[in-house]
Amino acid sequence: MKIIPVDVSASVNVIFLPKKVAKDLGIIEHDRLVLKVKNYQIICVVDLINGDKILVSKNVADKLKLDGPFDAELEVLKKPLALNYVRKKLDGKKLSEEEINEIIKAIVNDELSDVEKTYFVSACYCNGLSDDEIVNMTKAIVNNGKHITFNGIVVDKHCAGGIPGNRTTMIIVPIVAAAGLKIPKTSSRSITSPAGTADVMEVLAKVDFDVDDLKKIVNEANGCIVWGGGVNLAPADDKLIKIRQVLNLDPTGLLLVSILAKKYAVGSKYVLIDLPVGETAKMSLKEAENLADYFIKIGEMLGMKIKVIITDGSQPIGNGIGPALEAIDVLKVLMQSKDRPLDLEEKAVEMAGMIFEMVNLEKFGKKGRQLAEYILKSGLAYEKMKEIIKLQQGNVFEPRQIEEKLGKFVYVYRSKKKGKIRKIDNKKIAELAKIAGNPFDKYAGIYLYKHLNDSVAFDEPLFKVYSNSELKIKEVEERINFYENKNEKIIEVK
Amino acid sequence: MKIIPVDVSASVNVIFLPKKVAKDLGIIEHDRLVLKVKNYQIICVVDLINGDKILVSKNVADKLKLDGPFDAELEVLKKPLALNYVRKKLDGKKLSEEEINEIIKAIVNDELSDVEKTYFVSACYCNGLSDDEIVNMTKAIVNNGKHITFNGIVVDKHCAGGIPGNRTTMIIVPIVAAAGLKIPKTSSRSITSPAGTADVMEVLAKVDFDVDDLKKIVNEANGCIVWGGGVNLAPADDKLIKIRQVLNLDPTGLLLVSILAKKYAVGSKYVLIDLPVGETAKMSLKEAENLADYFIKIGEMLGMKIKVIITDGSQPIGNGIGPALEAIDVLKVLMQSKDRPLDLEEKAVEMAGMIFEMVNLEKFGKKGRQLAEYILKSGLAYEKMKEIIKLQQGNVFEPRQIEEKLGKFVYVYRSKKKGKIRKIDNKKIAELAKIAGNPFDKYAGIYLYKHLNDSVAFDEPLFKVYSNSELKIKEVEERINFYENKNEKIIEVK
Repeated sequence: MKIIPVDVSASVNVIFLPKKVAKDLGIIEHDRLVLKVKNYQIICVVDLINGDKILVSKNVADKLKLDGPFDAELEVLKKPLALNYVRKKLDGKKLSEEEINEIIKAIVNDELSDVEKTYFVSACYCNGLSDDEIVNMTKAIVNNGKHITFNGIVVDKHCAGGIPGNRTTMIIVPIVAAAGLKIPKTSSRSITSPAGTADVMEVLAKVDFDVDDLKKIVNEANGCIVWGGGVNLAPADDKLIKIRQVLNLDPTGLLLVSILAKKYAVGSKYVLIDLPVGETAKMSLKEAENLADYFIKIGEMLGMKIKVIITDGSQPIGNGIGPALEAIDVLKVLMQSKDRPLDLEEKAVEMAGMIFEMVNLEKFGKKGRQLAEYILKSGLAYEKMKEIIKLQQGNVFEPRQIEEKLGKFVYVYRSKKKGKIRKIDNKKIAELAKIAGNPFDKYAGIYLYKHLNDSVAFDEPLFKVYSNSELKIKEVEERINFYENKNEKIIEVK
Repeated sequence: MKIIPVDVSASVNVIFLPKKVAKDLGIIEHDRLVLKVKNYQIICVVDLINGDKILVSKNVADKLKLDGPFDAELEVLKKPLALNYVRKKLDGKKLSEEEINEIIKAIVNDELSDVEKTYFVSACYCNGLSDDEIVNMTKAIVNNGKHITFNGIVVDKHCAGGIPGNRTTMIIVPIVAAAGLKIPKTSSRSITSPAGTADVMEVLAKVDFDVDDLKKIVNEANGCIVWGGGVNLAPADDKLIKIRQVLNLDPTGLLLVSILAKKYAVGSKYVLIDLPVGETAKMSLKEAENLADYFIKIGEMLGMKIKVIITDGSQPIGNGIGPALEAIDVLKVLMQSKDRPLDLEEKAVEMAGMIFEMVNLEKFGKKGRQLAEYILKSGLAYEKMKEIIKLQQGNVFEPRQIEEKLGKFVYVYRSKKKGKIRKIDNKKIAELAKIAGNPFDKYAGIYLYKHLNDSVAFDEPLFKVYSNSELKIKEVEERINFYENKNEKIIEVK
């Protein structure tokens, strides 16, 4: 039969069958066919169409290394074993190591349709995952993905936060790498926040590298800050995340799997996890405490030493929000500029110190923090960051290179009264930054003049919004008015 | 922007966006865009592609009545409200009438992607539905679909069974219609069984009609037997069923909704439900009893009188399995042939009698059954069936018209010993019929020579398999040998 590739759907192997053909083959939508071309074969999920031509999504043709229309044999395939296990999990039963591996393997090979993957995510969400299931899924994801080994001690950090401006990674990585530890850091891009670490790093350098690049950079500089999606360390997890994003689902089990698989894949033995808590943070203190115990236990089962710190997430960290403004904050800390954000510096030094202490108590004693401080203050961290930026093909080393590109349209929000800052609403601040253009417009964002407990005079600026679009600045203003009319405070002064 | 229609995906409005375009618009996969063409607009779900052209699925172009490439404006849409409620249900909370209606409306309008619909089905499966939710969903499906009103008393029957050969509908409809009651019966095609009632009726007549046709046929003949999928009475339910089929999920709540919505839409006030139970039936006695209570309660809430009979599902009903062979059974009962299957006749007469008693106790007293018997024996039912067949543009009225078309390749399975039939495995019989070609090959199937408790001599035929494919008959033989080697009985003789 003649098959025509068509440039649609890149995430599942799809074959589009005319309804008549499907009827003759005795199959229904979401069934599976094996497409056989000479010595190759590939499993595709069936989508029914009204036309009379058989089409396949381009990724199928790519995998077969075919360009135009081609001939193939079609064979009806029984439902993959993996689906029995998806059903089993949906029915609230526990899955074995083999069963989980079967599901993850099918996901990596694009043999499960979006519907089937969604059933799996729902099952994990509604019925939860046992500790063994979490460990087995983490291993299955790594075994069906990539695995890197480094010489030396490999450490990592992660923030399960969502606090605007919390860019400690870009300070911790150079400090830790300067001390000779390996820290192959992969970070995410923003989905629903103004900026992910990958977006911020991208203001300074390239972040889209493959596994081999990552290995090379880390072997040279001890550290990197690259985009996890590009490295594709845990392809099954990336595919599950796409499904979870549809409803913004973060079921604890899958969240742990997602975070730990990426650490496990690069052989990290020591991992520091930052869980910010607060009224407008992602988590409450209680949730964070539960999650911390969970992380430590699962880490042990995976042979990782995990330390969790619960941090103050009641306000943004640093002054800038949005990729460019956050990158400026980071460079200022590394360069030890006078106007650097001290809250960001303090948090990064504290965390880097903890990593030092985790790795070798005897050598650093309680002095991890002092070492971190020394590396930062002496300029060693900044030198290391410049090395990493260069290795990542970047050429932005100073704040002024970024400042001159900031959004031309600005709006300054001023205090309506004299007093002290009592509350800053992370969510509203993030929302305004997104209205201004983040994360897609890197040079949009918000600069915060004040933090909690700072004193303000009447009419003193509280924050400044930057955007490249006059329309967007107007929308920001409208949104601010909307909150003021409802008497909902973005920043509360009392 | 220039948009190109492409003949893929018929069940959701899809727009295929090059990744670059999506990034510029600030949207991710499964987000939604409004496509604006002159005065029309349509909501599409986003699929990301690697190419550089913007494509839409053909159903979108069809809805806009456009043929070739066209110009349109794109507007990013917030996630529909319905998704908040899907999430709410996934979190185990109850949904209000308005919330359910919002979800069903979005499904009917193809505004929810397959992933989103799957989340909803999973939520209903894992967390169950309350009585109010079932009632509200039934109403929402009907309100967002079609609604027919008939003069007179409207009755219906339904079998939630899956017992091979259980074709009572095609006998009950003509009996009941001949008595002057309205019975606008919509039936399903087989998905996983050898035949659905619509497949069997299709051996005699057309079954694919729209609502207006259905109304006309029923107003003329009092009854019809058409394919529910064609009538499209409950489009939201049909879309949910497609998602459920992927894992063969029959969550009780959605099952009730699915059955009752179709009855509610045609204004049925009296509904008889047949729940066959048995070792190899779909349900155990306990499950059937629970379901029965459920049906009656929900029926009351919907203003329907529902009666449930729990029947013997320990063996196939009638002699034929597969569309053609079951149609022969039905015609033989209606014509009162000497060799008609008496078990099928008995069950149909019993059920028709119950319907008469439900409708009007005073008029028929305990004599519902006698009336049903009279209508059948007198030939009135057969006359009515011929009228229905003609109105449904059919011309098959006698078994011999079917018999001459039965599959040419046959295999006769004989008893290995003398004794009595102790067990018949419904599932294995159904499986063999499907291997022989059912339901797609209507003239394939199985003829059962014996039923439970019948005596058999050594080497006496137990059943005969028909197929149009020599290969398939060989596969049937192989499968039978497979079971014999494992000492699993298809039919147990002792």
